[in-house]
Amino acid sequence: MSQIIYILNGPNLNLLGQRQPELYGHDTLADVERNCAAEASGFGVEVRQMQSNHEGQLVDWIHEAREQAAGIVLNAGAYTHTSIAIMDALNTFEGPVVEVHVSQIHKRESFRHTSYVGLRADAVLMGFGINGYTLAVRHLCEMLTAKA
Amino acid sequence: MSQIIYILNGPNLNLLGQRQPELYGHDTLADVERNCAAEASGFGVEVRQMQSNHEGQLVDWIHEAREQAAGIVLNAGAYTHTSIAIMDALNTFEGPVVEVHVSQIHKRESFRHTSYVGLRADAVLMGFGINGYTLAVRHLCEMLTAKA
Amino acid sequence: MSQIIYILNGPNLNLLGQRQPELYGHDTLADVERNCAAEASGFGVEVRQMQSNHEGQLVDWIHEAREQAAGIVLNAGAYTHTSIAIMDALNTFEGPVVEVHVSQIHKRESFRHTSYVGLRADAVLMGFGINGYTLAVRHLCEMLTAKA
Amino acid sequence: MSQIIYILNGPNLNLLGQRQPELYGHDTLADVERNCAAEASGFGVEVRQMQSNHEGQLVDWIHEAREQAAGIVLNAGAYTHTSIAIMDALNTFEGPVVEVHVSQIHKRESFRHTSYVGLRADAVLMGFGINGYTLAVRHLCEMLTAKA
Amino acid sequence: MSQIIYILNGPNLNLLGQRQPELYGHDTLADVERNCAAEASGFGVEVRQMQSNHEGQLVDWIHEAREQAAGIVLNAGAYTHTSIAIMDALNTFEGPVVEVHVSQIHKRESFRHTSYVGLRADAVLMGFGINGYTLAVRHLCEMLTAKA
Amino acid sequence: MSQIIYILNGPNLNLLGQRQPELYGHDTLADVERNCAAEASGFGVEVRQMQSNHEGQLVDWIHEAREQAAGIVLNAGAYTHTSIAIMDALNTFEGPVVEVHVSQIHKRESFRHTSYVGLRADAVLMGFGINGYTLAVRHLCEMLTAKA
Amino acid sequence: MSQIIYILNGPNLNLLGQRQPELYGHDTLADVERNCAAEASGFGVEVRQMQSNHEGQLVDWIHEAREQAAGIVLNAGAYTHTSIAIMDALNTFEGPVVEVHVSQIHKRESFRHTSYVGLRADAVLMGFGINGYTLAVRHLCEMLTAKA
Amino acid sequence: MSQIIYILNGPNLNLLGQRQPELYGHDTLADVERNCAAEASGFGVEVRQMQSNHEGQLVDWIHEAREQAAGIVLNAGAYTHTSIAIMDALNTFEGPVVEVHVSQIHKRESFRHTSYVGLRADAVLMGFGINGYTLAVRHLCEMLTAKA
Amino acid sequence: MSQIIYILNGPNLNLLGQRQPELYGHDTLADVERNCAAEASGFGVEVRQMQSNHEGQLVDWIHEAREQAAGIVLNAGAYTHTSIAIMDALNTFEGPVVEVHVSQIHKRESFRHTSYVGLRADAVLMGFGINGYTLAVRHLCEMLTAKA
Amino acid sequence: MSQIIYILNGPNLNLLGQRQPELYGHDTLADVERNCAAEASGFGVEVRQMQSNHEGQLVDWIHEAREQAAGIVLNAGAYTHTSIAIMDALNTFEGPVVEVHVSQIHKRESFRHTSYVGLRADAVLMGFGINGYTLAVRHLCEMLTAKA
Amino acid sequence: MSQIIYILNGPNLNLLGQRQPELYGHDTLADVERNCAAEASGFGVEVRQMQSNHEGQLVDWIHEAREQAAGIVLNAGAYTHTSIAIMDALNTFEGPVVEVHVSQIHKRESFRHTSYVGLRADAVLMGFGINGYTLAVRHLCEMLTAKA
Amino acid sequence: MSQIIYILNGPNLNLLGQRQPELYGHDTLADVERNCAAEASGFGVEVRQMQSNHEGQLVDWIHEAREQAAGIVLNAGAYTHTSIAIMDALNTFEGPVVEVHVSQIHKRESFRHTSYVGLRADAVLMGFGINGYTLAVRHLCEMLTAKA
Repeated sequence: MSQIIYILNGPNLNLLGQRQPELYGHDTLADVERNCAAEASGFGVEVRQMQSNHEGQLVDWIHEAREQAAGIVLNAGAYTHTSIAIMDALNTFEGPVVEVHVSQIHKRESFRHTSYVGLRADAVLMGFGINGYTLAVRHLCEMLTAKA
Repeated sequence: MSQIIYILNGPNLNLLGQRQPELYGHDTLADVERNCAAEASGFGVEVRQMQSNHEGQLVDWIHEAREQAAGIVLNAGAYTHTSIAIMDALNTFEGPVVEVHVSQIHKRESFRHTSYVGLRADAVLMGFGINGYTLAVRHLCEMLTAKA
Repeated sequence: MSQIIYILNGPNLNLLGQRQPELYGHDTLADVERNCAAEASGFGVEVRQMQSNHEGQLVDWIHEAREQAAGIVLNAGAYTHTSIAIMDALNTFEGPVVEVHVSQIHKRESFRHTSYVGLRADAVLMGFGINGYTLAVRHLCEMLTAKA
Repeated sequence: MSQIIYILNGPNLNLLGQRQPELYGHDTLADVERNCAAEASGFGVEVRQMQSNHEGQLVDWIHEAREQAAGIVLNAGAYTHTSIAIMDALNTFEGPVVEVHVSQIHKRESFRHTSYVGLRADAVLMGFGINGYTLAVRHLCEMLTAKA
Repeated sequence: MSQIIYILNGPNLNLLGQRQPELYGHDTLADVERNCAAEASGFGVEVRQMQSNHEGQLVDWIHEAREQAAGIVLNAGAYTHTSIAIMDALNTFEGPVVEVHVSQIHKRESFRHTSYVGLRADAVLMGFGINGYTLAVRHLCEMLTAKA
Repeated sequence: MSQIIYILNGPNLNLLGQRQPELYGHDTLADVERNCAAEASGFGVEVRQMQSNHEGQLVDWIHEAREQAAGIVLNAGAYTHTSIAIMDALNTFEGPVVEVHVSQIHKRESFRHTSYVGLRADAVLMGFGINGYTLAVRHLCEMLTAKA
Repeated sequence: MSQIIYILNGPNLNLLGQRQPELYGHDTLADVERNCAAEASGFGVEVRQMQSNHEGQLVDWIHEAREQAAGIVLNAGAYTHTSIAIMDALNTFEGPVVEVHVSQIHKRESFRHTSYVGLRADAVLMGFGINGYTLAVRHLCEMLTAKA
Repeated sequence: MSQIIYILNGPNLNLLGQRQPELYGHDTLADVERNCAAEASGFGVEVRQMQSNHEGQLVDWIHEAREQAAGIVLNAGAYTHTSIAIMDALNTFEGPVVEVHVSQIHKRESFRHTSYVGLRADAVLMGFGINGYTLAVRHLCEMLTAKA
Repeated sequence: MSQIIYILNGPNLNLLGQRQPELYGHDTLADVERNCAAEASGFGVEVRQMQSNHEGQLVDWIHEAREQAAGIVLNAGAYTHTSIAIMDALNTFEGPVVEVHVSQIHKRESFRHTSYVGLRADAVLMGFGINGYTLAVRHLCEMLTAKA
Repeated sequence: MSQIIYILNGPNLNLLGQRQPELYGHDTLADVERNCAAEASGFGVEVRQMQSNHEGQLVDWIHEAREQAAGIVLNAGAYTHTSIAIMDALNTFEGPVVEVHVSQIHKRESFRHTSYVGLRADAVLMGFGINGYTLAVRHLCEMLTAKA
Repeated sequence: MSQIIYILNGPNLNLLGQRQPELYGHDTLADVERNCAAEASGFGVEVRQMQSNHEGQLVDWIHEAREQAAGIVLNAGAYTHTSIAIMDALNTFEGPVVEVHVSQIHKRESFRHTSYVGLRADAVLMGFGINGYTLAVRHLCEMLTAKA
Repeated sequence: MSQIIYILNGPNLNLLGQRQPELYGHDTLADVERNCAAEASGFGVEVRQMQSNHEGQLVDWIHEAREQAAGIVLNAGAYTHTSIAIMDALNTFEGPVVEVHVSQIHKRESFRHTSYVGLRADAVLMGFGINGYTLAVRHLCEMLTAKA
């Protein structure tokens, strides 16, 4: 059975490609999922993309990942900066975690410069547009392959 | 087809009129809705009132407003001070937004003096009791009429 | 004898309608006074509009209001953020006080996010343009009528 | 009809006994509920244990407790430190509230040293493992008995 | 020719005896002046009491004191906490300065705990009611007598 | 020979039951000692209660406990918030330590929200009145029994 | 039997008149006691002066004052700025408390600008040299006389 | 008609040359005006020097400058650090503004290191003694000439 | 002529592969250069790797890049957190900049959580080991190709 | 032998006239040197202009100035805000120092509002474009002439 | 008569050699005294070692040193970071003072990085184990010899 | 072959003995080197003294020490407070490090109270004049001897 990577997206990312394209570009989460699946398939790995505006739902999915997933790619959106709950959930997950942001958030408001997710993530990527997801998936696939 | 204004209420506002009446008065959200509808109808505008204790639900409704509503009146309750997610959602909405608080929160604890919603709202009203909602709706109706 | 509402304006508001119209609009204090008088007259209430760039003058007028006025609408301009003296003066006034700002100051520089006036005001309005004065007057008139 | 105590648990506590046992021990929420029920039954009191990773759900249950419960034992997990909404909900509840934490959070990261729940709770317990729930329930039972 | 002590009072102190008597008592500035004059006359010293709500006026009077007065008793009211201008003026005065507050301001809001006047005053008195002025005058009279 | 638990009380706790009963109740340290002894005797454990207003004396007793006691219950009173010396002394003690406060100090002034004792204590209890001491003793007895 | 005022002095004040005379003058605590006794005797009041470098001893004496004294004059020296324990002790004393400092501490290092004693004292005096003690005693005598 | 430069001076600068000459030198505002007039006359420009200890007066003169002056040289004295009102007034002036300080204020107390005037001024000069005014005037004259 | 990407490394990175391998791994800058060159060659792009422990040297190379390079990959090491000079230099460069860190610095000391480089970089990568350099180069190559 | 003034420029100023001309203008350091030499020659004074991106080099040149120069004009660029080393070097120089900035840095990012150089400089100039250097040199020449 | 150096030790140092030997080593205060006496005897100087857990006792001994000692070596333990009283006592002592810490406290918790003792001490030593006392004594002996 | 200790000096220390002798004394780095060599030779150890005003050069020498030196004595001058790069370099060195300052920097400006070097150094010495270097060398020699 092939390994699975969870790609979790937080609040407002369902509008990716629709809102503020000068900041986030024109690609959608469907594009993200397609690109990631393509990248992962070369490694014999599957991806599963989920999005929610609910902090609690993201916590639930991370718990689910404990049983289902070998790694997590997480763009927690605004919860990145405020959610200790998500960080605590990630701390219950033993596999590798990559934090992704579509825009380069260090160039934006100062309240976006702190990250609870970053206190747990093994790697962080920002400002690569939706290409960041693909890079994150590839990195996880290489790790999983290397381990195997 | 008539224009619609969304009146969104955050956590604990379902208890309006029941809890701490010395602070919030005796009127309920049903009263709010009735008053606002009356005010708006004079302008040929409809209102839709919704309340949730879930941050994610408020985000969802703001997204829905992108398609459905010409303006938003938002009392985000305690999420006013903690939710970057709601502020980000409002940033995806192009119409006018009015922030409302039933009590005058600048006279209360200092953690109620900061507002993420206020970084996006076009106008802010506090301390007018539930009359604040009506004033907000009227202001939006006048703007919509003026534009039209 | 009819009741009176004082409409007090602080520094630089004498230039309302002349300076930075993209921020403050094209209406002047004369317009403010005319609109407010019209609104109040329906309630049998008079308004008196005064403006000064002097912090001490505003304190003097608030003292005068103790004898003359049933309510105060105050746009203290920049003194909002720095004047404990005006807040102390308001604390000697027993009637209701509404704080008004023409622009939405929570969207501007962070030093405009704190308000000494707000530690005393019974209600706050910002971002409604000069319409905010009218709304404030109406709210006070309704309170005065309700009490009477 | 016997009185009821609500035992509410916040994010990640569904994993109690499974995650980081060196920090949280090996007992589960089922054990918590069984122990608390046993303790309460000696006083003729019932307990009802609920857990959610959703902040809004916890607010909903606290509202429900206004009608159903004589007291609340609350372990809000990570929301302890970030949720004004839960604190506001607790402020609408008139009975006694005991805050519980399984681990001694004052020995952990500094962002766990502040508690919005603690601004409302009548008593606080931390570092007693799951025994803390039982102690909290007993304390509430003694209070309810004393009052009755 | 006899020596003179200036007794300068800042904003809102014209209302002494009228506003918030639970905080400031029932005596007025006229009482202050009478008591101080009586105390000083025993030393062959005169007092001159002045009050203004204008920061600039207080600066003007302190400048005047450079020529006219042997000492200053200053209750700068709310300007105590915000006026570097008054502190700078005091720095141009060579005689002794006593800072007086009618209430004990260290028991009030934290923004009243800092004092620019206190960075220059030779002595400070607070919480003695209007008796504080008399004690301050006596201290200055003793100093002037000792020097002479 | 039976094991001993030290119950150490810091400044002003000698007045327990006499001062501010609305905050601290009517029971005294003698009651505390009697209750704790009763609780402990069921486990074959003794308690020794001591109180001092001197920080150094508390340090001395903690050192003495290194030889004499199997556990410490500590209510350091105001020193909780200021004494690194007591925390350092506790760090030299190898047995379990429970921090107790009679009132719920997180609801009081913000300077009571930080605790040096809490950086070392294994468990913390506050707001249980003097019952908190008994609960702390019972917890320690159970630990000692479990270990034995 | 005549009433008694406690004059309590904290750390390093035993050296008054010996150390740093440019800051503290040449008078000693014996002079303080003699002057205060003379002032008080005119009112039929006695004074009792005590000094200690031990924080705990000052707490003990304040407790003793609960039975023995009608008022307290307190110069807590350096403990002014660090001792919550002394403040708590003063909160158990029901009579009036005057805080005295020989030098004007607001002109010295910033860590001397905060005062825990000041959060409880009814009046504060600083920079009057040892004359401050006499003024404080007179104020208390007048209060005691007025009450009687 | 020749162009005019306003030279505005804030609190305590009327004492220039009299107070603290080690800090401010021996020259007076009359000297400043004479030097500046001489410098400006070479460019066919006039200067008008005004001084006030009143913040509101400075605001008034800046408003007047909107009609009368082609540029402003401003030494706001202590108001530099505290007056948002003056900064707001300057924002209504369209010509160039140069901020001047006689002493080098960055070497003085830290509260003199922040400047609201500096958030608007086009150029800043400090520590040049009264020569700074002349340099400022010359710079403005060159700008006016260059533009013309 | 082919385009060039500068790969600039700051202080202590010359020891990559030698120091703290549990943090930084066993690969060296030579490996970095080899991998990046391989990646870039597929796009017809060259890379040039340089390392210095001197802040000024890094500034010099960024200036040189203005003429020579189409993009910059920068791992400024410790200067990331302290060097405004490097950020200013990057602001003079018009091409894309990617910030790289070998370890995940958000999991390390808090002084490593702020980045001056991040205020300018178009994208940021951390925690990918030396693979991060390759990913950065590929991203730049894709951008350059897309533009061409 | 004629006196010499050192004109020292820090990081990125070698690009003056090339980078961000809307901020810094089109003139170069060669223009600065030419203008300053012309200004100085009228006083019989020479200037020597040097620029480096290396903090240590600037320290070296300031040391050299101890032997060679009668005064220093310093634009330390970004090191202004971060270099205690340069400030310490300036403290070893006995002649006058003028701090220059081409742009008005108080209108830019807040990290540019603090200046270590300003803790030592005798005068500061900002926002005068490259004309600031000339004004600084003239000021030093006048000082040197006056002293001579 | 030979000169004396006081070696004063604060809270918990009585346990030196017993507690946390990985931090403080195995030597005791008796060893410290023996080593220091040996070092001092070569200079004809005596040492006197004293330890207390009481802040007030340390103040008393410093006062005693005014008469008895030519220099002080002080390891104030935890009081280093909290005791203004000890600093004030040291300010009454005219001889040299050396601050010693057995461990390198700058590598420990941040609350150990501030030192009131350090605001007065002439020299500071930390991290030399108990050898630090000997080095401090030798330094004082050399100073005393040099002076003699 | 004998062991070597590196004695590294940072910015402005080349002027030791020349600048501010009231702070730093009259001895030079040549004296430091001579004294240290004499001290070390008794242990069969050599010293090598180097000084640079360049942060990068100090990093280079610390790297060199990895191969050449058994221990480092470091006076990083002003870089002590600002250089994470030097701290990182020290973290790559496995031998003991002693931080030295000629003056007692805790008595100087507050920005000299923080030390990045101190987060790594095994021991710290300040205020011993150039004798501090000798004491540091002796300590390292004793350690090296003890190990050998």
